[in-house]
Amino acid sequence: MNYTMSDSKLLVIPLGGLGEFGMNCLAIRYGDDIIVVDAGMMFPDAELLGVDVVVPDFSYLVENREKVRAVVLTHGHEDHIGGVPFLLSQVNIPVYGTALTLALVERRLDEHELEEEPHLNVVEAGTRIEIGPFTVEFIHVTHSIVSTVALAITTPLGVILHTGDFKLDPTPLDNEPFDLHTFADYGKGGVLLLLSDSTNVDRPGFTESERAVRPRLEECFHRAEGRVIISCFSSSIHRLQQILNLGEEFGRKVAFLGRSMLSVTEIAHNLNLLEIPDSILLRPQDIMSTPANKVVTVVSGTQGEPMSAMARVAVDNHKSLSVRPGDMVVLSARMIPGNEKPIYRMINHLARRGSDIVYGTMNPPVHVSGHASVEELKLILSLVRPKYFMPVHGEFRQLTRHAQLAKNVIGQHLTETFVMESGDVLELDKFGARKAGTVSVGRVCIDSGTVDEVVEDIVIRDRRHLSEDGFVLPIIAINKITGRNETLPEIVSRGFVSFDDSSDLMQQARQVVAKTLDSSSAEERTDWGVMQEKIRVDLKRFISKQTSRRPLIMPVILEV
Amino acid sequence: MNYTMSDSKLLVIPLGGLGEFGMNCLAIRYGDDIIVVDAGMMFPDAELLGVDVVVPDFSYLVENREKVRAVVLTHGHEDHIGGVPFLLSQVNIPVYGTALTLALVERRLDEHELEEEPHLNVVEAGTRIEIGPFTVEFIHVTHSIVSTVALAITTPLGVILHTGDFKLDPTPLDNEPFDLHTFADYGKGGVLLLLSDSTNVDRPGFTESERAVRPRLEECFHRAEGRVIISCFSSSIHRLQQILNLGEEFGRKVAFLGRSMLSVTEIAHNLNLLEIPDSILLRPQDIMSTPANKVVTVVSGTQGEPMSAMARVAVDNHKSLSVRPGDMVVLSARMIPGNEKPIYRMINHLARRGSDIVYGTMNPPVHVSGHASVEELKLILSLVRPKYFMPVHGEFRQLTRHAQLAKNVIGQHLTETFVMESGDVLELDKFGARKAGTVSVGRVCIDSGTVDEVVEDIVIRDRRHLSEDGFVLPIIAINKITGRNETLPEIVSRGFVSFDDSSDLMQQARQVVAKTLDSSSAEERTDWGVMQEKIRVDLKRFISKQTSRRPLIMPVILEV
Repeated sequence: MNYTMSDSKLLVIPLGGLGEFGMNCLAIRYGDDIIVVDAGMMFPDAELLGVDVVVPDFSYLVENREKVRAVVLTHGHEDHIGGVPFLLSQVNIPVYGTALTLALVERRLDEHELEEEPHLNVVEAGTRIEIGPFTVEFIHVTHSIVSTVALAITTPLGVILHTGDFKLDPTPLDNEPFDLHTFADYGKGGVLLLLSDSTNVDRPGFTESERAVRPRLEECFHRAEGRVIISCFSSSIHRLQQILNLGEEFGRKVAFLGRSMLSVTEIAHNLNLLEIPDSILLRPQDIMSTPANKVVTVVSGTQGEPMSAMARVAVDNHKSLSVRPGDMVVLSARMIPGNEKPIYRMINHLARRGSDIVYGTMNPPVHVSGHASVEELKLILSLVRPKYFMPVHGEFRQLTRHAQLAKNVIGQHLTETFVMESGDVLELDKFGARKAGTVSVGRVCIDSGTVDEVVEDIVIRDRRHLSEDGFVLPIIAINKITGRNETLPEIVSRGFVSFDDSSDLMQQARQVVAKTLDSSSAEERTDWGVMQEKIRVDLKRFISKQTSRRPLIMPVILEV
Repeated sequence: MNYTMSDSKLLVIPLGGLGEFGMNCLAIRYGDDIIVVDAGMMFPDAELLGVDVVVPDFSYLVENREKVRAVVLTHGHEDHIGGVPFLLSQVNIPVYGTALTLALVERRLDEHELEEEPHLNVVEAGTRIEIGPFTVEFIHVTHSIVSTVALAITTPLGVILHTGDFKLDPTPLDNEPFDLHTFADYGKGGVLLLLSDSTNVDRPGFTESERAVRPRLEECFHRAEGRVIISCFSSSIHRLQQILNLGEEFGRKVAFLGRSMLSVTEIAHNLNLLEIPDSILLRPQDIMSTPANKVVTVVSGTQGEPMSAMARVAVDNHKSLSVRPGDMVVLSARMIPGNEKPIYRMINHLARRGSDIVYGTMNPPVHVSGHASVEELKLILSLVRPKYFMPVHGEFRQLTRHAQLAKNVIGQHLTETFVMESGDVLELDKFGARKAGTVSVGRVCIDSGTVDEVVEDIVIRDRRHLSEDGFVLPIIAINKITGRNETLPEIVSRGFVSFDDSSDLMQQARQVVAKTLDSSSAEERTDWGVMQEKIRVDLKRFISKQTSRRPLIMPVILEV
């Protein structure tokens, strides 16, 4: 940390999710008290080879462990809660969130073995809790997952309003509208700092209501001669509710396929958030023995994830469901950028099975976003009219645009906007607000979903290097008595294009290594580190000149 | 080949581009004469690690080299001409195409060293040529590159009409409209088989004219306080023309940046396809010394390719152009699926430089497609009303949809539609048309753009394996006199997460290898192949059990 601390300063520190997409996490500090808002994860880019999960680097919280009072969660999406197990394994602080959010956190915690018992505290929208010098009010908002809240955090210096993820759905399926009144009250009372969701700042107009997908889904039910097979996000509980309702109306039984689909529907049903009509459920094993036009199946795996239920259905490799001509497949989800190719591959397979497939952008829509478009963002800015504004949840291009939007809409109220990236510190005190240095942040790559399999950058760098040109390993056996290499060096390689055992290149490379050994002084030869480096450099130069490629070269010296 | 040959049969064989995107290539055979339509390439998926270029497997043409008469090109895009150097290096046949198409082919040929001189024959739209039993008429069509043609190929069994890539631009910039009349004449005379572009079969309505981007570009010129910086495809010559025209109207000089931008504009200008107003050009080295509001720069690299001019400008690492606050950056191109992340990364960098950035979908558009939407496809089907229909250029999902569209629109004329994939053979004779077996096709991966650096599948498989979990190499030194291993085996690894020299796992793994060696019979030990496999299996089982990972394991046995 390169800033000075004082009791009367308020620090707002994004630890993830600003200037990058996913793994949202924010620390708010006043004096010796810190609260954390959300602790999300992100799914890695393809370039993070072999990495399964990425979470923020929580060092700042670990270094200040005795000051961290709680983590407060806005909703149950992975980019807001997926990092909780990794956070709690390092700092076991109390967790606050709505019942659904915490049930989804518990499901993730069950996959890990934490040393200490977690402290989960269910709160309802409308309640206020005190945590150290902070009073946190949970405000009901609408989003693609139910039980989502925004946070009004009253601090000794004023109110911080954090929207979390939201859209302004005028007709939510549960008739629980966005709590505009509480936003208005805070706006009237004066808000020091607004943090608002920038995900859809590029989208003009208003985001459609969740109910807007009903006409298209209804049409699919009308048209389907065989089964209706719908893939959507398992956390979209209102989408699932609409499918259940249509199933009932059209006299089709509903089967859920996929691990996340089964566990989330059970959680939501137990919390009375999903109404399941009597005897509508069909067990997966009964799908194929029920008349096709009496069945809806809801399948997880909208993004073409290779092991997901939907991807397996597409290649006809699922034990409970086989797609037949006349079936209607509906992809009721957005394609997350970067996933288009696996998704299209899945659609091609489904087309080969003779099914009709509904996907992509159309009107009426088969999917609606959960994030506010630009007109909704303007409305929130106008209601809250804060003194300072910090756009959150987005890449730099989106944060910049959102800040510009705020200046255009409420310029007369705003003192300043702050486009920050993860690790930047915003400092507020009685004199104003300013960027004040940075704390150490970053991404922690995890190989297989357990809290302790962290992948170092160097390993990923090696994998990337290996993935481009493979490796070449010269192996030199040195007699431990004479200190001499008595045979020509061996060379093994994989993933490198021009090398096979019989090739001239291989034979020449062996000579290159032998020459390096012979031309080294007796002193050099006593230092294996030096010899390895000399061999590496000479062989790299030779291979690069001959092939223009740069495999990973790693000399091995064996004493025999 | 698993079909029987007869003089009176016509075979239509897609060798690439059906059921996959890019590398379009089609063989048409009558008796002992074959002509080839297009020979494209595709850019590899990220999963083809380290591969630079993918071209079709031309084995069918090589095996029938004495029958192949010519390759006929529809237009100069890489997915139609990029494979020509690789085809000619295997079968040096005459090449036919329009002047621009062949100039672009020559540019690619210059990068390779072909053993024999290529035979390039310029044709104009409206001309007919005879090649063996075929008469080929070149028909002018509109597309995002100028000098594009469709082909009417008259065979002894009837006419094959191949649209190539097209849209129906009612107001092309050069006022050379799509030659609907010739399509109509062929339709009236009777077409045996239509092959039509399926790229945009998912898009409702009509594709906008190239002129539709003018209002948006004009607005950008109006709004820009500093430089106007536009990135578009270098082959979009009419887009470049509009930018030049706007530059003239707004009193801004125009500088082209990027190798492909410079060479394509020169080619197009020399062919009188691009009109460059007098003294409007600005040399790259003069950009920064000219007043910002007097400059437009046109920069190649719309897809965020790491070494492209635009990507380097974005990170302020280009010698001729530095983006400043007040500059207006316009991305006038589509984001090719799979490229979103590098493109957004580039936009984020540009936002950090303080520029205003125009990109994505908007109305009026900043980019228009070059491919026909569904209403245009219907019009072509209605004009041509062929006996048989084969959708081309698309993935399976698009081909299926296009075939369905044809049945809906001209079902009364159609005898049959054929959804084929690359390698499928369509056989036509006086009795009708049918799928008749397959020929061997596939993709050939090339590492660095030369004709001879083919990457075998096994190498790519190894690279993928290496990229996920790295490698583990046990190295066993065996005394060549005693046949015994005298020291504990060494193990080296890279890119594998849980292994470092001091780890327990490493020590245990060495013991596992030693145990495998000790427990093997004297006979086994004389066979290195057997020993390597035994060690691999045992070590794999051990590592998989301990870590759940599957690194590439490759035992090395050294005789010392």
